[in-house]
Amino acid sequence: MQQLANVQVVLVEPAHPGNIGATARAMANMGLSQLVLVNPKQFPHESATARAAGADFILDNARVCQSIDEALSQAVFVLGTTARSRRTAWPVLTPRPAMAHVSELLHAGQAPVAICFGRERTGLTNDELERCHALIWIPVDAQFSSLNLGSAATVILYELRHALLAIDENLQTQQIQQRLAQIESQPLATAQMLRDFYAHLETVLVEIDFFDGRSSKLLRKFTRLFNRAYMTDKEVSMLRGVLSEVQRQLAARSLKKD
Amino acid sequence: MQQLANVQVVLVEPAHPGNIGATARAMANMGLSQLVLVNPKQFPHESATARAAGADFILDNARVCQSIDEALSQAVFVLGTTARSRRTAWPVLTPRPAMAHVSELLHAGQAPVAICFGRERTGLTNDELERCHALIWIPVDAQFSSLNLGSAATVILYELRHALLAIDENLQTQQIQQRLAQIESQPLATAQMLRDFYAHLETVLVEIDFFDGRSSKLLRKFTRLFNRAYMTDKEVSMLRGVLSEVQRQLAARSLKKD
Repeated sequence: MQQLANVQVVLVEPAHPGNIGATARAMANMGLSQLVLVNPKQFPHESATARAAGADFILDNARVCQSIDEALSQAVFVLGTTARSRRTAWPVLTPRPAMAHVSELLHAGQAPVAICFGRERTGLTNDELERCHALIWIPVDAQFSSLNLGSAATVILYELRHALLAIDENLQTQQIQQRLAQIESQPLATAQMLRDFYAHLETVLVEIDFFDGRSSKLLRKFTRLFNRAYMTDKEVSMLRGVLSEVQRQLAARSLKKD
Repeated sequence: MQQLANVQVVLVEPAHPGNIGATARAMANMGLSQLVLVNPKQFPHESATARAAGADFILDNARVCQSIDEALSQAVFVLGTTARSRRTAWPVLTPRPAMAHVSELLHAGQAPVAICFGRERTGLTNDELERCHALIWIPVDAQFSSLNLGSAATVILYELRHALLAIDENLQTQQIQQRLAQIESQPLATAQMLRDFYAHLETVLVEIDFFDGRSSKLLRKFTRLFNRAYMTDKEVSMLRGVLSEVQRQLAARSLKKD
């Protein structure tokens, strides 16, 4: 996807080379390629290569700069990341609207766009934030807000890919909604209850010689069918009642026959 | 957030303890707490603790199971992850609609919900997928689809948190849309052009004695203002023309005075 080639990921003074590798991997996952490193503490480094897990082409082509200004010189729109949800001097966006905006800029031919990530411990300095048009804050739990650099990159680039691909989720949502609408307000059956039901079903199917030489893998067709149905515990009990009844009748007839 | 306490993250036979730690950290970031491990290769392990980066409370409370059935026994809804975008036997959803659905289930009081992640190299077996009501596929680049376990967990749990928090992004989007609407179809100025403009501005402000003893940090108020405006290169040229003209006039008057 051409648009993604116009997005630069800028890591400012990353301390751990493993994080450079993790970011390169996330970029490759999401279809990006332009990595820019400002004064990395150690690079190249075997930890970076190991964590990149095959995304060496991104590390090999990474541009290493001496200053953030050198890194950003060509960018027409600069986003920075922040660990604070509010800033007086900049608009702070969550990743989704931020990347929707980047997507619109790219579609309008405004490029390159740069996304800057700060140091692992201290982030971007105020002086560096001055270069940014807007900031991105990932809505993490306030009780545990320290996000790994590679994870932060993953979330933001995932949203960027999502925005650019305009993934058609309406269809998916419709399908699942239809199913949800059929669920009773009863509690759903637990996996344990379902497993017991499937075991019971298999027993009965064997008893009635349903498989008749066919593979017992046929049972999977039943489990898939019932899993799709989102059964309530009452429904499972009802079905097990049917199975028990079948077994009772079979036993009764066997006795008669004997 | 109470709903998040009802979601179990199940790792099936994770090979690398570092990935267990990374997943625990992602869980803590997104407000989850219930980690379930099925036959982890090494656990507890110092790599898990290191990568958890403080999310020890999740590792300490992790439930270790001998089988996936033991892990899932209480779950009323089971999602599995897959590296394949299409499966004949299961509905495959991208993370957003999948987590929207989980959110609706949780709001309806259907709990616990389990999200299962497979082995690093081979994922979940077909036999394990049989336990799942639906599968999640993360829309990565087909050219580089190997996603780190911790990263996959981060994306999915981020979407879950997003769905449950129902983050109000409409307001954010409106704000940014209004700004976007004002952008001309002209190319935006590069960061280098802006930086040269700000340097020029500072020079002129000093020349006209604007700072008058006040801190030159006042300059930041200008950079913020202009960054908010998303200037085109023509607009920057125009403003620099103004600055140059001011300088020319000042110089002319200085000459006269002399």
